[in-house]
Amino acid sequence: MADKLPEVPGADGANPHEDGLKPVTIAYIAESAGVSVPTVSKVLNGRAGVSDDTRARIEELISRYGYRKPPNRSNVVELVFRELENMWAVEIIRGVERIARKNRIGVVVSQFGLHDSNGSPLEDTVERRPHAVLSVAQLSEAEREQLAAKGIPFVVFDPAEELPDDVAFVGATNWRGGRSATQHLIDLGHRHVAMIAGPGHAYCRARQAGFTSAMTAAGLDASTVVVAGLTREGGYEAARDLLAGPDRPTAIFASNDLQALGVYQAAREAGLAIPADLSVVGFDDLPVVAWMDPPLTTVHQPLTEMAIAATELALSLGRGEKAPQSGVEIATRLAVRGSTAPPAQSD
Amino acid sequence: MADKLPEVPGADGANPHEDGLKPVTIAYIAESAGVSVPTVSKVLNGRAGVSDDTRARIEELISRYGYRKPPNRSNVVELVFRELENMWAVEIIRGVERIARKNRIGVVVSQFGLHDSNGSPLEDTVERRPHAVLSVAQLSEAEREQLAAKGIPFVVFDPAEELPDDVAFVGATNWRGGRSATQHLIDLGHRHVAMIAGPGHAYCRARQAGFTSAMTAAGLDASTVVVAGLTREGGYEAARDLLAGPDRPTAIFASNDLQALGVYQAAREAGLAIPADLSVVGFDDLPVVAWMDPPLTTVHQPLTEMAIAATELALSLGRGEKAPQSGVEIATRLAVRGSTAPPAQSD
Repeated sequence: MADKLPEVPGADGANPHEDGLKPVTIAYIAESAGVSVPTVSKVLNGRAGVSDDTRARIEELISRYGYRKPPNRSNVVELVFRELENMWAVEIIRGVERIARKNRIGVVVSQFGLHDSNGSPLEDTVERRPHAVLSVAQLSEAEREQLAAKGIPFVVFDPAEELPDDVAFVGATNWRGGRSATQHLIDLGHRHVAMIAGPGHAYCRARQAGFTSAMTAAGLDASTVVVAGLTREGGYEAARDLLAGPDRPTAIFASNDLQALGVYQAAREAGLAIPADLSVVGFDDLPVVAWMDPPLTTVHQPLTEMAIAATELALSLGRGEKAPQSGVEIATRLAVRGSTAPPAQSD
Repeated sequence: MADKLPEVPGADGANPHEDGLKPVTIAYIAESAGVSVPTVSKVLNGRAGVSDDTRARIEELISRYGYRKPPNRSNVVELVFRELENMWAVEIIRGVERIARKNRIGVVVSQFGLHDSNGSPLEDTVERRPHAVLSVAQLSEAEREQLAAKGIPFVVFDPAEELPDDVAFVGATNWRGGRSATQHLIDLGHRHVAMIAGPGHAYCRARQAGFTSAMTAAGLDASTVVVAGLTREGGYEAARDLLAGPDRPTAIFASNDLQALGVYQAAREAGLAIPADLSVVGFDDLPVVAWMDPPLTTVHQPLTEMAIAATELALSLGRGEKAPQSGVEIATRLAVRGSTAPPAQSD
């Protein structure tokens, strides 16, 4: 235990959180007082079991920081999607639900990409006074401020954009995944590898950077890149372009599985056999890609583990605890299946 | 309007609902009094706009039936799955969310098949005091009684078992779907059609009855039936048996799409081309089956429409309104794709 008050940020000892965006938490007061969260909680609730000295120190901090109990919260977390279209939504919901249920917290699922009311998309979410918000959608700065102003903590799942350092997030090791997918193709003997890159999302940029990094490290040309939407149609059209030229690649790394399925169709139409004539690697490991003919080699996104970590982080923030870290990337893993093989001997 | 009190069930005029399982609703009182629900609501809330006679009649009924206002409800519906594994969960969630959001009601998603607490699986659901429960899982009789005792209305989605007549449900026209899938194969010229039947679920029985009905009406033998689980593995093993014999069918109708994908694999291993050597029809129309090679002919389950209808029914029951019907089956539709063709000329 600290014998004296620890140094606090802010030269004049003022509440470092007085900009109103980050309410002072019990965890912050506990840390400042050098005591545990339950101890602060006891003082706040007027319960016994705290020495007079400690109680005085905590009360001084509570008064100095202007701590207010968070408003009465309902026993739910809000899981917000921009759109519920994506095929992995259910894997995320399952992971979130599993952890929330253990904590006897309900999971309210909503999407706000398609909202048709005139109000703010998050209005209903805020009005339900959730324990915390877990956003699979990108939150705009205004939306983040709206939540912070109401004292509702939030975690961004698989961020599509770069976030300020103080925004809690859970993602996947996209750079590492892109790198190991590309390295797998290089190890098989491929020299001419193309990438179907995604739109400007942060995770797409990281996947492409992994590709570039592996190619460059192997002394190979990383410039055969076509940008396409993250859909089967996008992958199909990009692959048609890539396979039409005289100097076609022997392998394609797609930014996600849907694009890779589009590559399958383009290869079929071009009379190319996978993997004999063309190796294909995807990213995501959607449940269906193992059933394709041939089963797709892809980078497994640990969606369930990500959902579990994000929920635990959101619940801990909702209890006013300090997060052990502001963000975490969970490791991807290459699932090698039938769509990759050494290139045909063409020389 | 009725001039006198309508006859009420129960010879002695006692509350017909006094078994406590079905609380008296505003709708029931309105019907008994021959007035509208808003009129009863006005009397209950002491508002004007009701004639003295009518008010007296309603008050008499309220007193006789012992109507109590339902407990304070939170602004959510509970969407309960037995397991969130199935691939169409997200389509159901999307439909429910869309309608609930319009009504500014949150959707709490949970699964209770895997609950690990000692309490009743529905305990947390009940404690959240939802507006209504929408159950994709089968509810046991005890669970239905638990909800009824708390005055929480519920709707069963796509019932897996026969339900008592007073349980609200929304399903699909499974019998009709099974019949039209089979008729499509008969119309193409198939005479030897096999069915991979599912386990004893009500919807599986209905699909099989549709198959039998179409075959029998065409004077064909409906006895080539193998029972298998509703998985890809189940379909694979059943198809392996069906395709191994000397007198193999020229077409297979599977109870769901996953089984049909298992048939694809068995056909591939047996060296049979789809649809040249074998026609295949599934049931569900999962988003992925249009991407298979060849794209799967299947019976489209109107999951989104079913989810919308179920949510509207649940919300209306949650408002204490009488349902226009206790249940509804939404029409299926055959989606003809590349996996069905006339049988090869073998004679």
